[in-house]
Amino acid sequence: MEVFKADHIGFCFGVKRAVNRANQVLSEILNDDIYMLGEIIHNPQVIGSFKDKGVHIVQEISQVPFHKHLITRAHGILNSEIQLAKQRHIKLIDTTCPYVKKLHQIADLLRKEDYQIILFGDLNHPEIKSLLSYINNVNTKVIQSFDEIKYHSFTDTGKIGLISQTTKDINQYKQVVTKLFENADELRIFNTICRATRLRQESTRKLAQNVDLMIVVGGLNSANTTQLAHLSKQIGVKTYHIETEKEIENEWFEGKQKIGITSGASTPDYITENVIRRIKMIITN
Amino acid sequence: MEVFKADHIGFCFGVKRAVNRANQVLSEILNDDIYMLGEIIHNPQVIGSFKDKGVHIVQEISQVPFHKHLITRAHGILNSEIQLAKQRHIKLIDTTCPYVKKLHQIADLLRKEDYQIILFGDLNHPEIKSLLSYINNVNTKVIQSFDEIKYHSFTDTGKIGLISQTTKDINQYKQVVTKLFENADELRIFNTICRATRLRQESTRKLAQNVDLMIVVGGLNSANTTQLAHLSKQIGVKTYHIETEKEIENEWFEGKQKIGITSGASTPDYITENVIRRIKMIITN
Repeated sequence: MEVFKADHIGFCFGVKRAVNRANQVLSEILNDDIYMLGEIIHNPQVIGSFKDKGVHIVQEISQVPFHKHLITRAHGILNSEIQLAKQRHIKLIDTTCPYVKKLHQIADLLRKEDYQIILFGDLNHPEIKSLLSYINNVNTKVIQSFDEIKYHSFTDTGKIGLISQTTKDINQYKQVVTKLFENADELRIFNTICRATRLRQESTRKLAQNVDLMIVVGGLNSANTTQLAHLSKQIGVKTYHIETEKEIENEWFEGKQKIGITSGASTPDYITENVIRRIKMIITN
Repeated sequence: MEVFKADHIGFCFGVKRAVNRANQVLSEILNDDIYMLGEIIHNPQVIGSFKDKGVHIVQEISQVPFHKHLITRAHGILNSEIQLAKQRHIKLIDTTCPYVKKLHQIADLLRKEDYQIILFGDLNHPEIKSLLSYINNVNTKVIQSFDEIKYHSFTDTGKIGLISQTTKDINQYKQVVTKLFENADELRIFNTICRATRLRQESTRKLAQNVDLMIVVGGLNSANTTQLAHLSKQIGVKTYHIETEKEIENEWFEGKQKIGITSGASTPDYITENVIRRIKMIITN
């Protein structure tokens, strides 16, 4: 039995940057409370470690006392949250991923140039909530999956601007492109699925085709990790999505020869290494 | 045996407009020679009738004497031809289709905004020759079919602008869109295949699926008519592309129950009606 790791795995640029920034703040501000708005990244173990370091995790700005430091999400912050934070003189440490910020800029350009904006993403994901709060455009439509297109009516202007959440599946985005093309005189598409997401998807697909068991490591609430598990299942290989090595069961490996390991953009390497160590222990016993 | 006509058939807006304009000129200018630059539309019978009316068909501006009237093609005229015509004080009657002119404007916009322009069209078609002469941009690439994409390298700027000859196949254009999407950060697509072309393609597809013989009527040199014959063959029904009723052979109809008739955007109705009359004579005998 052999264990293979996907070529592209673990923390992406934006996640690394956000976590490093948060740790830097913790090392600099030693004599005051530090707050965090929801989950800086979608990984319960990382969030747990920030809690262990004394960070207060809150869900709303109103829970942060005046003048305190507040670390925001890598997925972006709502416009209304920024306004409220200003009113409370809160010191914001904005860890929004630069690729998410780029998405905001593109949406703003499309709005100004009178495109009907179609946003391929998940309505409940903080990245999409944040984006919608910035562009504040009643004509923007969110499509969560290819199948949803049929429930929407489109522009009379004939101009459609299409953008995607940075962590959606590139092949599904392509399907959406092909379908929307039928409804527009002009279709302006921005490939806003970030390179890290694409590379993780491609290498997961490649690996899943060559093993007989896939273990996907990362937050169950992580969109991009869930996407990797979904891709792997689509290929037809038995797939388990776990957060840590503690969930692993010995019988998963019975009769399996090749084990593939991948992890999401918000999964710390040490967790993936723990998983690999645990698997190697099981299969050598 | 029954004969069915496609829902959308014959002269499109641009062709009607060009032919009417030419006939108007002929009725107004009775005491001077009138010239025509190549084929105003791609139909040998229409061109023949202009010749019969005394119009001189020339291939180059240099063949037109100074100060004469010159009727240009519905597909557009080259920039260099306009310049030469000016030098010779030729009175141009520009019959370029408004949708082709729109294509020029879009190409110009893309060039100004620094897009790598990809043009889906046939290098030897006058519409494409005319368009290329206007945008005069060394970075513009012409792709004649989906298969040709692989021979091209694309932009470093990440911005691709995609336009199509007005008479290409909409489904092939869609394939090109899907493929180019992989190469661009931004893909700005204009659906420049004209409505008349799309309607003729759709109704040809629909009809071809419901008959056991298709007769496509129109110039063998007509891009849009040839496209209709190609679509019909793709569906798997026996298809003949003819210019007039004289080419029809009796045995084509042996054992056939349903005969479909379609014609291109440059085919005069009277030719299609002659074809139908001839077929009805054969099948009722």
